[in-house]
Amino acid sequence: MEPFEEARERALRGAKAGIKSSYGSEEFALIQAINAYRELTKSYNLAYERLSEWYGIYFPELRISNPKTLATLALVLNSKPISRDAVAAAVGEEGKADDIYAKANATMGREMGDEERGAVKKLAESNLAMDSALEALKGYVTAASKRLLPNTSYLTDETIAAELLSKAGSLEKLATMPASTIQLLGAEKALFKHIKFGSKPPKYGVLFKLPAVGTAPRHMRGRIARAYATKISIGLKGDVFSKRFIGEELKSSLDASLERIRSSPEPEPRQHTHEYQRRPMGGRRGFGGGRRPRGSERHGPPRRPGA
Amino acid sequence: MEPFEEARERALRGAKAGIKSSYGSEEFALIQAINAYRELTKSYNLAYERLSEWYGIYFPELRISNPKTLATLALVLNSKPISRDAVAAAVGEEGKADDIYAKANATMGREMGDEERGAVKKLAESNLAMDSALEALKGYVTAASKRLLPNTSYLTDETIAAELLSKAGSLEKLATMPASTIQLLGAEKALFKHIKFGSKPPKYGVLFKLPAVGTAPRHMRGRIARAYATKISIGLKGDVFSKRFIGEELKSSLDASLERIRSSPEPEPRQHTHEYQRRPMGGRRGFGGGRRPRGSERHGPPRRPGA
Repeated sequence: MEPFEEARERALRGAKAGIKSSYGSEEFALIQAINAYRELTKSYNLAYERLSEWYGIYFPELRISNPKTLATLALVLNSKPISRDAVAAAVGEEGKADDIYAKANATMGREMGDEERGAVKKLAESNLAMDSALEALKGYVTAASKRLLPNTSYLTDETIAAELLSKAGSLEKLATMPASTIQLLGAEKALFKHIKFGSKPPKYGVLFKLPAVGTAPRHMRGRIARAYATKISIGLKGDVFSKRFIGEELKSSLDASLERIRSSPEPEPRQHTHEYQRRPMGGRRGFGGGRRPRGSERHGPPRRPGA
Repeated sequence: MEPFEEARERALRGAKAGIKSSYGSEEFALIQAINAYRELTKSYNLAYERLSEWYGIYFPELRISNPKTLATLALVLNSKPISRDAVAAAVGEEGKADDIYAKANATMGREMGDEERGAVKKLAESNLAMDSALEALKGYVTAASKRLLPNTSYLTDETIAAELLSKAGSLEKLATMPASTIQLLGAEKALFKHIKFGSKPPKYGVLFKLPAVGTAPRHMRGRIARAYATKISIGLKGDVFSKRFIGEELKSSLDASLERIRSSPEPEPRQHTHEYQRRPMGGRRGFGGGRRPRGSERHGPPRRPGA
C-alpha cells in the first residue's frame, strides 16, 4: 500500500472511532427514550379515547377508565361466546366482571359485522402494544436516569430528571446551566412570549410536574420551583463532574428551604400585575423587541379608528 | 305481575329496541373508523420519526424511509448474530439487503445495552401493531364507504367520502347539505376566521385531498372543488335517499365541467384581494361580526400611537 493511502486509512479509522465514542454516551439514548415516552403517552391517550368512543356504539353500557383494561376487554368481548373467565382476568374484580358479563350478553349496542370486528381487534391490539412499549420505555428511562443523574433523580424523580436532560440537549450543557435556567427549562415558549410581548414571566417549566410545585398554593409555586432548581443545579455538578452522590444532604437542605417557604406569610397581591402584561422588555435581551425603544409601541387589541 | 309493572316492562323493552336500532346504523361505525384512522395515522408518523431518530444512534448509516420496513429492521437487527435472510425479507431487495447487512456489522453507532434493546424492541413492535391496525381500519373504511356512499366513493374515493361523512355527523345531514357547504366541509376554522376577522374565504376543506384539486394550478382549485361538490351533492341523494347508483353519469358530467374549467383562460389577478383581508363580513351570518356595523372596526396589526 502506498504511504499516502496508508495514512488515509489510519485517519479514517481514527475518525470512525471518534464518531463511535461520541455516539457511545448513554445520555443520547436516554434523551431519545424520554422523547419517545412523552410522545407515545400522548398517542396512547388519544388511541384510548378513540377505542372507548368506538366501542361505545357496540357496548354503550361499558364504563372503563383504564386504557389497558378497555383494550383487553375489547379483545375478550370480541369472541363469541364470551368467556366469563377471560372477562374476570381482564377486569381483575369478580363482582365487576359478573356485571360486565351480564351486560355484554344483553347489550343495547350495535351488532358487530365481521369487518368491523377485525378492525376493532387490530385497534385494541395496537393499543396494548403501545401500553407495553410505554412500560419498557419507562423502565429504561428509570434505570438510565438513576445511572446518569443519581442526584437529580433523587431530588426530583427519574422522569423529571430525564426531561430536564432532554430539554438541555446534553449532560454537560445541563450541568453548566445556572439554576434560573434549569428552573425555566421547558417553559421556553412562555419565556419568549414574555420577552417579546411582555406577558407574565413563567415561573417553572418541567419542574411543574413535581408534586411539591404543582400542588402548592399559587403564590408559593415560583419560590418552591426556585428552591428545587438551586439544589438540582448543585446535584448536577455531582452527577456529571465529580460523580459523587450528595442527594441525601441536598434533600435535607431542600426540605429546610421548603419549610421556610411554606411557613412564610402570603404576600399582598402585587399592584402592577396588569402593567406587567402590557410592557414588553424592550431591548434588554435582544429578541426582536430590541428594534423599538421601550414603550414606543402599543400592545393589545387593535384600536377603533373613531375612539 | 301488576298491570302497571307490565306496562313499564313493555315500555322499557320498546325503548331498548329503539336505542338498539339507532345504534344499529353502520354510518356511526364508519365515522368512528375514519376518525380512528386519521388520528392513528398521525400517531404512527410521529412514532416512526421517533424510532428513526433513536435507531440512528445505534446504526447511523441506515437510511430507510418506509415506516414498516424500519420497524421490521429494528427488530431483525436487534438479534445477535444478525440473520442475513431476515434482513433480506424485511427489505425485499437483495442488493440493498446485502448493503445493510454489511454496514450493520461494521456500524459506527452506539453499542446497545440490554435494557435499551428491550425498549427499542417494544417501540418497534408497537409501530408494527399500529401499521397493521391502520391496514385493518383502511380496509373497513373502504368496504363501508362503498356500501353506504357508493356514488360519492365513485366520484372521489372511499377515504374522502368517509371524511365528508365524519365532518357532517350523519348520512342524512350530509345528504341534505347544499353543495357550497360540502365544498367547505373540513374548512370550518378558516371559514369562521373569514367571517369573524375578514381573512380570505376558504375554497375547499376535505376536498383538497382530491388529486384533481390539490395538484391543480392555484387559480383553478376553487372552481374544481366547486364542480366536485356539486356532483357529490347530487350523488349523495342517490346514496342516501333513492339508493341508486348514478356514479357513471355524474362522473362523465363532472369530467366535462373539469375540462371547461381547465381550458378557460387564467383570470387577471383581482384588484381587491388586499381589501378582502381587511373587511369582515359584518352581520351577514351573525357570528359575532353582527355586533358592529360593516367597516366600523379596523383589523390588522395594532397601530403605532404616533402614526
